[in-house]
Amino acid sequence: MDVVLVGDERVVGAELNRLGESATSGLSITNAPQVVEMHEQPVRAVRTKPDASVVVAADLVASGECGAMVSAGSTGGVLASAIFRIGRMEGIARPSIATVIPFPGHPIVLIDSGANAQCKPFHLAEFGVLGAVFACVALGVAKPRVGLLNIGEEEGKGALLHQEAFTLLAAAAPSAGYEFCGNIEGHDLPKGRADVVVCDGFTGNVVLKLAEGTARVVLGELVKALSESENGPEAMTLLAADLAGIKERLNPEGEGGAHLLGVEGICVIAHGASSASSITSAVRQASEAIDAKLLEGIRDSLRIGPDAQTEMALSAGATGTAASGAGSDA
Amino acid sequence: MDVVLVGDERVVGAELNRLGESATSGLSITNAPQVVEMHEQPVRAVRTKPDASVVVAADLVASGECGAMVSAGSTGGVLASAIFRIGRMEGIARPSIATVIPFPGHPIVLIDSGANAQCKPFHLAEFGVLGAVFACVALGVAKPRVGLLNIGEEEGKGALLHQEAFTLLAAAAPSAGYEFCGNIEGHDLPKGRADVVVCDGFTGNVVLKLAEGTARVVLGELVKALSESENGPEAMTLLAADLAGIKERLNPEGEGGAHLLGVEGICVIAHGASSASSITSAVRQASEAIDAKLLEGIRDSLRIGPDAQTEMALSAGATGTAASGAGSDA
Repeated sequence: MDVVLVGDERVVGAELNRLGESATSGLSITNAPQVVEMHEQPVRAVRTKPDASVVVAADLVASGECGAMVSAGSTGGVLASAIFRIGRMEGIARPSIATVIPFPGHPIVLIDSGANAQCKPFHLAEFGVLGAVFACVALGVAKPRVGLLNIGEEEGKGALLHQEAFTLLAAAAPSAGYEFCGNIEGHDLPKGRADVVVCDGFTGNVVLKLAEGTARVVLGELVKALSESENGPEAMTLLAADLAGIKERLNPEGEGGAHLLGVEGICVIAHGASSASSITSAVRQASEAIDAKLLEGIRDSLRIGPDAQTEMALSAGATGTAASGAGSDA
Repeated sequence: MDVVLVGDERVVGAELNRLGESATSGLSITNAPQVVEMHEQPVRAVRTKPDASVVVAADLVASGECGAMVSAGSTGGVLASAIFRIGRMEGIARPSIATVIPFPGHPIVLIDSGANAQCKPFHLAEFGVLGAVFACVALGVAKPRVGLLNIGEEEGKGALLHQEAFTLLAAAAPSAGYEFCGNIEGHDLPKGRADVVVCDGFTGNVVLKLAEGTARVVLGELVKALSESENGPEAMTLLAADLAGIKERLNPEGEGGAHLLGVEGICVIAHGASSASSITSAVRQASEAIDAKLLEGIRDSLRIGPDAQTEMALSAGATGTAASGAGSDA
């Protein structure tokens, strides 16, 4: 696999020189001296900075020169670049972010985990269809169980958004090839009751960050309690390897990045604070998605049965036209 | 403290007889043979079942016979009873649920944690004012730091709801006596960056259940890893007391119940799966809220300065009249 590094060629080149030839084989540089800063309004930044690294990387995917893009930059910048330069898939109103949360024993795909803060019911239905195809590739599940994140188990729970999305997700299930397992509550997420959990991007972003934060705090509390306990140091020595293993298993960074789904190219969004190994995972993930024909799978799945399609179109008409979906709210 | 048990007197009476006189001093029974079932539409159930236990309990508070109500029944039923029989406080559009999440070292008040799935900006501002008074009582903080749950730190993040709520919460801070600390992200919750975290009831419900679920899974994973490890049993023996302590500290049940704020009475909602000790905590909590003059504190805080009040009223007018806020969506 060849990797093209997109960025300021002076900075990137100097770093490659420092590492030496043996460490950098298979790497080339495409110059992109501009940067979308974290504080910038992403859509405007992408429009006014044609030489920003995310824009140039998206162009390489759009032209077919690269098979995928990976970025740890501003999420909004990645979204806007991918949507405007690579383009939405036909039939997709709102590209969305799918993230694998590595709950022990039961990884789940959370979609949308941050692209669309405000959603309509048919957007959530789209997320379900996209998430199901992604789960086949990312989790290796043949017929994913798709659930709707809600505040109660029974149908009819939640706001109007969730009530209508419930109906649409149930209707689309047979033709899109997933099993709809109804409403999923917050405490169900770590239990693996669903392979794919659908929610709006606001809730998804909160869920993702809270799960990370809580896992970290609980482990931290444990280590603190051990270090203060009489038998702690002795036990810690006995358990050093196990604790490291648990930390590793619970580390969301280990999974690499999140996928932006619904655009005509593979786009992996890595964490802004990624370590070298996280970036490696993210690049590997992008490459695996190409090999697994993720895009083809999504295109096939979007050619869903006429019933479900009519229903989704009707709903889209009834609740208004989709807005740009770009990352200004991410 | 005298406790009135409200329920079917035959069932409750038989149980008291079984326990004997010494265990049941200070307890009396008020007969309420009807029950609001979990599947019932709460507002309708409360209207058609005047002898439901939650309705009778709310009436006891409304008439002043009891100082507070505690219920582990259907949340929707408790909400509807409290709102229709005890009544909203003047100036409150949407009573909301405040829950203390016992993140280690940094407990936080999460409001709304489930009463209002769909909110307008001025509802979130109300939650901030209510939550701040509650934090003074529940956390013992003199000037609580109030944050808005959002998907980025900077002002302007989130959907329109959050952008407008940000402005209102900032404006109300000086007169309501809290410090507004801006946007709080999911991973900030366990870090104690705020004493009070404001969000809509949908997100709050998900946050609460996810934090519980994640903490439980991480601890479970740990115990599993230890039991499978070579040195595990030995270490477990060394650490038995510490592990129990950590479990206790991370156990949300330990905190008793959540408070419904914004009604003219003290109302504690206990977990449906409460243990005996959780119910005891919830009753104690209700009693402490009476002693701490929670209601008076809220009334004082609602008499906020004219500037903030005008702003909130304007915003309420601009975004429509509040709906009933009863538990149909809880």
